[in-house]
Amino acid sequence: MMDVLRYRADEIWGFCGSVLEKLSVPQEDAETVSDCLLQADLRGVDSHGVIRLPVYAGRIRKGVVNPRPKPRIVMSYAAAALLDGDNGLGAVVGSQAMENAINLAALSGIGLVGVRRSNHFGIAAFYVGKAIQRNFIGVAASNAPPHMAPFGGRSRLLGTNPFAVGIPAGKRSPLLFDASTSVVARGKIIVAAQERKPIPDGWAIDCEGNPTTDAAAALAGSVLAFGGPKGSAISFIIDILCGVLTGSAFALHLNTLENLGAEQNLGHVFVALRTDLFMPTQEFAARMDAILEMLSVSPPAAGVERVLAAGELETQNEARNRALGVPLAASVVDQLATLGGELGVAFPDALGPAGEAEVPA
Amino acid sequence: MMDVLRYRADEIWGFCGSVLEKLSVPQEDAETVSDCLLQADLRGVDSHGVIRLPVYAGRIRKGVVNPRPKPRIVMSYAAAALLDGDNGLGAVVGSQAMENAINLAALSGIGLVGVRRSNHFGIAAFYVGKAIQRNFIGVAASNAPPHMAPFGGRSRLLGTNPFAVGIPAGKRSPLLFDASTSVVARGKIIVAAQERKPIPDGWAIDCEGNPTTDAAAALAGSVLAFGGPKGSAISFIIDILCGVLTGSAFALHLNTLENLGAEQNLGHVFVALRTDLFMPTQEFAARMDAILEMLSVSPPAAGVERVLAAGELETQNEARNRALGVPLAASVVDQLATLGGELGVAFPDALGPAGEAEVPA
Repeated sequence: MMDVLRYRADEIWGFCGSVLEKLSVPQEDAETVSDCLLQADLRGVDSHGVIRLPVYAGRIRKGVVNPRPKPRIVMSYAAAALLDGDNGLGAVVGSQAMENAINLAALSGIGLVGVRRSNHFGIAAFYVGKAIQRNFIGVAASNAPPHMAPFGGRSRLLGTNPFAVGIPAGKRSPLLFDASTSVVARGKIIVAAQERKPIPDGWAIDCEGNPTTDAAAALAGSVLAFGGPKGSAISFIIDILCGVLTGSAFALHLNTLENLGAEQNLGHVFVALRTDLFMPTQEFAARMDAILEMLSVSPPAAGVERVLAAGELETQNEARNRALGVPLAASVVDQLATLGGELGVAFPDALGPAGEAEVPA
Repeated sequence: MMDVLRYRADEIWGFCGSVLEKLSVPQEDAETVSDCLLQADLRGVDSHGVIRLPVYAGRIRKGVVNPRPKPRIVMSYAAAALLDGDNGLGAVVGSQAMENAINLAALSGIGLVGVRRSNHFGIAAFYVGKAIQRNFIGVAASNAPPHMAPFGGRSRLLGTNPFAVGIPAGKRSPLLFDASTSVVARGKIIVAAQERKPIPDGWAIDCEGNPTTDAAAALAGSVLAFGGPKGSAISFIIDILCGVLTGSAFALHLNTLENLGAEQNLGHVFVALRTDLFMPTQEFAARMDAILEMLSVSPPAAGVERVLAAGELETQNEARNRALGVPLAASVVDQLATLGGELGVAFPDALGPAGEAEVPA
C-alpha cells in the first residue's frame, strides 16, 4: 500500500501559495487557489487537492493559463450575468462568479452567473461552501473534457461534469452535496490497473462499448455515467448550461487538463438563492433541521451504522484532518517537493505517518 | 399479456375534460389537466397518463382537492415568486407557475417560482414543454410521498421526486429530460409481483434493507434511488427545494395520492432561463444543434442502433401514437368507463387492438 504522511494544514496552504506567487499569481489569488486545493484534501477528496498543483503550475509555465487575469462581467441582467474569466485559474474565476451570484440573489431572490474562458476549478463544494457561509443556497457546476461515453455509446464524449449543491441549516450541519457525474473517479481505475486488479462491474466499458471488469480495458475504453441514462443526461445538461449557454468550449472541443499545448476554455455555472425567499430565515433553518433529523434517524440498512446526509462524511474528514494533519501520499509529496525545489520553495516537514485506518477512503 | 387498445387522442382528451367538468372543474382547467394526462400517454409514459384520472376524480369527490382553485402569488421578487396553489389540481397550478417563471425570466434573465399547497402534477415534461414552446430553458420538479429509502437506509423516507429539464435547439428537436429519482417506477414492481416474476437486482430492497429480486418482498420494502448515494441525495435536495423552501409538506409528512382522507400539500419548483442570455438566440440554437449532433453521431455500443438524446424516444412515441391512436390497457379502460358511467360521460370506442410491437415499452 501507498505510504501516507500527515502535514500541518497551514504549512501545506503556505507552500501552495508560495509556489503560485513564484509563478506570478497575485497573493490574494494564490490564497484563493490554496484554499480550494487544501479544502479538497481536508475533506478527503484528494483527487482534487494539492495533487493538482503541479499541473496548474505546468499550465501557467506553458502560458496556457493566465496567472494575472482580470475577470469581468460582460453581460448582466437583474438576476443573471456572464463573467469572462480571462483564462485565469478556475478557483479565482469561480470565487468571483459565486460572489456575483450571491449579490444578484440578495437583490432579486435568485442569481445565476455563467462563466466562460475559465479553467479547472477544483471541488465544486468550495463554491457552494461560500454561499452557505453567507446563508445562501448555492449551486455550482462545471463542464470538463470528454472522458465518459454517453449512455448507449462506446466513445468518450461527456466530461465527468461535476455539480454541487449547498443548503444552510440551523443547528445541524448544512447539506453539502458534491459529485461528479461518473460512477467513479477515473483515478480509481488507474490504481486498479497499476495493481493489476479487476474493477467492479458497472464502472466502465471497453473500446467496443461492452461492460468490462478489466481495468486496462476500461482505461482504453470509457468510464460510465452514474445512474445509467439519467446520469448520462444530467452530465450532458451540465455541459449545455456550462459550455453551450455561456459561449465556452463543450464536449469534444474541450482540451484536457494534462495537454499543456492549448487553453481549455472551460465553462461554469453558479446559482445562489436566498434562504428567506418564502419564509423568515429562522423558519427555513428549523425546517432544514427537521428534514435532516428525519434522514438521520431513518432506520439504517443491515450493516450501516446511520444514514448520512450528503457532505457529512467529508465534514468528519475535515475535522479529523484539521486536528491530525493533512494526509498526503508520498508520491504526491515527491512531485510537490520537486516543484517547490524548482521554484525555491521548501516543502514542509511531515508530522508523521498517517495510520491506515485514518486515511480517508 | 395485457390487452391494449388504441383510441383517438382527441376523443380521450374530450372524455377527460368532460369528466373533470362534471366534477366542477372549470372548462379551461379541465382542458389543461386533460392536456397533461394525454401528453403522458402519447409520450409512452402511461404511468402518468389517463390512468390517474380516477384518483384525481376520487380526490375531488372526497373534498381533498379543490376543483375551482384561485392560485395566487403570495410573495414576489425581481426573479422569484411563491405561488399558493389553493389545493388545486397540480397541472392547473403548475401551468400557472411555469408561466410566471417565464415572465420573470423574460425580465430578469432567470425566474424561479416555488409552489405550495398543490397536488400531483403528472409528468414534469409537460411544464418544461411549455417553456420550450416559448423558447426558454425550463426546469420543473416536484416532491412526492415517501416510497423510497434513502441510501444506507431501509425505510421509506424520500419520494420518487421527479424533475425535468427542457432546452430548445435550432433545427434539431429540443432536449427534454424527465425522470423520477428512483431506479424504476414502482408500478413495474407491482406488475412483476402480480405475475410472480423476479425483478432485476438493484431495483429494490426488502424491509431489512437487503437487496432483493423478490417482487413481493420489494413491495413490502422500498424502491431504490437511481445512481446510489448520488440519486438519493438529488431526491433529498428536490424535497428540500420543493417542500422545505416553499412551505409545503415534505418527506414523512407527505400524504399519498391514494389516501383520500387528507390533502397532500405537495410543493413544486419551476425555473425558466432565457436562451439569449449570453448570446443571440440563433447562436445558442446553432450551438445546441452542434452538441446534439455530436451526441447523435457518437459511436454506439454493440447492439445499440444510435445514441439517443433525452426525450427522443418519447418524441418518437408521440408521433406514432398521434398517428395510430393512444394505446390504453383494457384494465385502465374499464376503470375509466366505470368513472364515466357514474358521471354520465360515455367512453369513446376503440380504433382497434394495438399490436404488441407497437406498445411503448
